[in-house]
Amino acid sequence: MAESTTRRSRAGRRPGSPDTKAAILAAAREQFAANGFDKTSMRGVAKASGVDPALVHHYFDSKDDLFLESFQIPFDPRQLIPEWTAGGLDGIGVQIATRFLEVWDDPQTRLPIETLLRSAVVSDTAAEVLRSGLVRLIFAPLSQALDVPDALLRAQLVASQLVGIGLARYILKLEPLASTPRDVLAERLGRVLQSHLTDLSAPPGVL
Amino acid sequence: MAESTTRRSRAGRRPGSPDTKAAILAAAREQFAANGFDKTSMRGVAKASGVDPALVHHYFDSKDDLFLESFQIPFDPRQLIPEWTAGGLDGIGVQIATRFLEVWDDPQTRLPIETLLRSAVVSDTAAEVLRSGLVRLIFAPLSQALDVPDALLRAQLVASQLVGIGLARYILKLEPLASTPRDVLAERLGRVLQSHLTDLSAPPGVL
Repeated sequence: MAESTTRRSRAGRRPGSPDTKAAILAAAREQFAANGFDKTSMRGVAKASGVDPALVHHYFDSKDDLFLESFQIPFDPRQLIPEWTAGGLDGIGVQIATRFLEVWDDPQTRLPIETLLRSAVVSDTAAEVLRSGLVRLIFAPLSQALDVPDALLRAQLVASQLVGIGLARYILKLEPLASTPRDVLAERLGRVLQSHLTDLSAPPGVL
Repeated sequence: MAESTTRRSRAGRRPGSPDTKAAILAAAREQFAANGFDKTSMRGVAKASGVDPALVHHYFDSKDDLFLESFQIPFDPRQLIPEWTAGGLDGIGVQIATRFLEVWDDPQTRLPIETLLRSAVVSDTAAEVLRSGLVRLIFAPLSQALDVPDALLRAQLVASQLVGIGLARYILKLEPLASTPRDVLAERLGRVLQSHLTDLSAPPGVL
């Protein structure tokens, strides 16, 4: 941020204008999509949107925030995960399932995530965006919160089940899965998410 | 097939030619993709490929067979499911997981299924093909074999987990999930597939 005073308002954009924030978000979306999370910088986004880097920092505390807002992710996993795990890991499966279904059952909060998922299936760069976003914002904090072996693999198995529900319930619209009430489904899913996360029993023969 | 004698070889194609079979399969793929499973008929495929309907019946016993071969599905679920369930439902989760991973771990057998899945995510007609194929060839026989309530929903929850693994391990290539050995993964997955299929415990609080 040290260079901000020398580069102020070079494109004449003023802080506080809704246009300015929208321009930053549009540039961020493009940069994340073209270069992935790691190679995108707040300074690069400032340059692409023609604003002072200080202004990007004014609106967004971090690259994580910029990422979440540019893809309109309707929740902050960095807050949610500590909340979910505060009282231990019992019941975390159902909590994750319920929150996921709430977001996907509402067309407005589903849209940006569904769009990102659809893009990731057909485009390697979009896949990289989704992958890096998931790793940074969900897998890393979730596996840190889990006091179990293979925590990262477990977090990814959870993601695989949820992404599969996104596809089967909302994109393929399989029936009766698509019209199963949220609370019934949250129970079924919660059970297997809980198993993915905390079941330590080893050989399949035991089950 | 009664009309076959009057329409024989109208396009001059001869039975037994590899070209003839290839032409039928190409036409079938197009018809299934354009119209879905239910609205595609063996006679329609014959017409589209310019061969006598009797010839389509000569190569393919049923529309199911035509479907499986036109999308190069590398196994016959109508055989597999009775095999899996012959000795009861214990261990069926691991059997399904192992077979799924074998098919997807081999790029050659994965390709047609991965292509169908990618198409289904971006195209409603491809989604309809995948949906109708799944319902007819997997969900129906699997839920018939299950002596449990909500059998069809359970079969679809299994499909959601597997489709999610297809995405996360093979398309998004999340690590360590993508390089986890098949037998380790089959155990983890088998456990939750088994739960989806046969776990009758009700409230999530019990788990």
